[in-house]
Amino acid sequence: MSIRIPGFTLGIVGGGQLGRMMAVEARRLGIKTIVLDPSSNPPAAGIADETLQGSLYDPLSLGALARRCDVVTYEIEHINITALYELEAAGVHLEPRPRVLEIIQDKYRQKSFLLQSGLPVPGFAGVAAADVAAYVPAQYPVVQKLRTGGYDGRGVQVLLNAKSTRLQGESMFESCIDIDLELAVIVARGINHEAASQAKTAVYPVVEMVFDPRAQICSSVAAPARISDSQAKRAIEISVAAIEALDGYGIFAVELFLAKDGALLINEIAPRPHNSGHWTIESAVTNQFEQHVRAVCGLPLGSTELLRPSVMVNLLGAPGSNGVPNLKGLSAALALTGLKMHWYQKTSVQPLRKMGHFTVGSHSLEEALRIANQASDLLVVTGNEDVS
Amino acid sequence: MSIRIPGFTLGIVGGGQLGRMMAVEARRLGIKTIVLDPSSNPPAAGIADETLQGSLYDPLSLGALARRCDVVTYEIEHINITALYELEAAGVHLEPRPRVLEIIQDKYRQKSFLLQSGLPVPGFAGVAAADVAAYVPAQYPVVQKLRTGGYDGRGVQVLLNAKSTRLQGESMFESCIDIDLELAVIVARGINHEAASQAKTAVYPVVEMVFDPRAQICSSVAAPARISDSQAKRAIEISVAAIEALDGYGIFAVELFLAKDGALLINEIAPRPHNSGHWTIESAVTNQFEQHVRAVCGLPLGSTELLRPSVMVNLLGAPGSNGVPNLKGLSAALALTGLKMHWYQKTSVQPLRKMGHFTVGSHSLEEALRIANQASDLLVVTGNEDVS
Repeated sequence: MSIRIPGFTLGIVGGGQLGRMMAVEARRLGIKTIVLDPSSNPPAAGIADETLQGSLYDPLSLGALARRCDVVTYEIEHINITALYELEAAGVHLEPRPRVLEIIQDKYRQKSFLLQSGLPVPGFAGVAAADVAAYVPAQYPVVQKLRTGGYDGRGVQVLLNAKSTRLQGESMFESCIDIDLELAVIVARGINHEAASQAKTAVYPVVEMVFDPRAQICSSVAAPARISDSQAKRAIEISVAAIEALDGYGIFAVELFLAKDGALLINEIAPRPHNSGHWTIESAVTNQFEQHVRAVCGLPLGSTELLRPSVMVNLLGAPGSNGVPNLKGLSAALALTGLKMHWYQKTSVQPLRKMGHFTVGSHSLEEALRIANQASDLLVVTGNEDVS
Repeated sequence: MSIRIPGFTLGIVGGGQLGRMMAVEARRLGIKTIVLDPSSNPPAAGIADETLQGSLYDPLSLGALARRCDVVTYEIEHINITALYELEAAGVHLEPRPRVLEIIQDKYRQKSFLLQSGLPVPGFAGVAAADVAAYVPAQYPVVQKLRTGGYDGRGVQVLLNAKSTRLQGESMFESCIDIDLELAVIVARGINHEAASQAKTAVYPVVEMVFDPRAQICSSVAAPARISDSQAKRAIEISVAAIEALDGYGIFAVELFLAKDGALLINEIAPRPHNSGHWTIESAVTNQFEQHVRAVCGLPLGSTELLRPSVMVNLLGAPGSNGVPNLKGLSAALALTGLKMHWYQKTSVQPLRKMGHFTVGSHSLEEALRIANQASDLLVVTGNEDVS
């Protein structure tokens, strides 16, 4: 497959930070981008060649985008699937395809699919909204997840005992795994089948995710993960098998639990560039956003080689932060060797809101972790209306 | 010095490809940017927080920009110096300062300054416009350069003998050096003097520049240069001494001749990020655009370490190309390992016009050169109105 440059046009559903980064990389490659976003001036505006304002659930808006694009992709999995199926039936090229998104959107369906595909997952059960209150899990603690709509820790909670307050809605209850490490594997699958010599699948090194104890939100990522070669090999095998089972094209982030007993279990899959892959911007030969664009546009996949050990840290709003953001400590942090700042230009801050991230690369992961910890102490995001 | 984030505002005079890259990096750091450019929709528009339309020679436009910025910098050295001096006198913070630009703008004055500073330069003579026709150089071939306004090979030519047609205008005639290699050294000097422990000057590895034989335009850059350690040390010493003599802050590209007799001579200096430093985007810890922003905004300088040997190649319009551009060979080129494409989105092509560049990084410079040569054969920019 060869594409016209300039001329070839990529549609991106969602113009947030991830859509912005996709548009940056597409533009470098000479690919035109049109973004659909509900807000009038999303982060991707100005980078994308054009921005359409409209709901991600509105078939008319999705159709208006699709009609003008050679391929349409997504920065987010919460989209109107029925509308996507209709577009697909009308001949629109969507990647990943609606069927893949439909499976992933619903956490219970996703996990059932993985189980049926012979892949290792924690024990789980689907519970209808009406039955949530009465449901008796095999044991506590247990994890309750809403089947749809969860994001960055919302819609997920650990129930310590029978008295813990439960979430309302269609749910999945999942065994609480005794976790040694949380891992992530970024898998790219390209739609270009032309040249037999070109890899159809490319996998980044396994990384370690660290979660903020205050919420189920990823606070930092270490690349590569401090695991054995055989564990890394197994994590990659499982992750590639999952994406092949889904038959998805594009970038996929597979989050895994490495249990204390050594088991590797899939936690969940994101069908797009992911926070656990932000380290690739500086520290991999091809970053996950360029790789996604290559994969869905039918271009050959790029090298996933790690340039040097790196740690990515999310800059979260401080406790009590509110109002217009203020970043403290930038100058001191930039004096640390190998630190790359990514401020997201958001106009308001809240506790635990992702306001940016930084990546530290170094000659060893230990040194990168040491510098990242120093920087984390220096960089604080507060607001002009903080509450104490 | 500590700066308010968000709030601190950087003015950029010129919104072309270089201004765009400065704005990209400033934005990542949380610094607001306002760009001044004569065109209504320059490459930096959309990336910069705001774009002002106006001539780079118009004092009112420059003043309108300056009034709203904490620091003003430039992507180009051809600006109205008188207006800049007036702004400086009115308290505007300009980096590099007008005096530095004034010296550099005029190639004869620049070379005289370097000579007076005890730095090695080729033999040269200033010749008034009225005397150009009658001027008799000591020997042929000789290089004639217009004192001001030259860019990308324009305003520079080699005179083979007394019959060669001469350029019109205030000129400098320069001895033709028997060149072994053309080198470049990117030097950063930061205005932050606060912390004695922080480097005030940071230097990137010496690189090799290759020029297109069809014109005096740089066609590719190899990092690091294939020279001895003592040659590299000497090139860096000369380059740093030149920028210290100028007392400039920001990024400076020092172009040098390595003569066949081993002499190192300064060719010329650019007071801004430069084509010879584009390889730093992928292959240095801190790229030259971020480094420039850090330097002029009073932030600490970043590491200039080379991540891996790299070759940058300019994508020039093919001979006879004209009209709306068309890039051939992208898919085949992206199948090569370690290639990063930068397409500039220009709307028309001409022979030798810079339409983009690509960088190839690899484990050895030899391998990077081999892949870059393959890619150069594959990637061709033509137009829809080509003339043969």
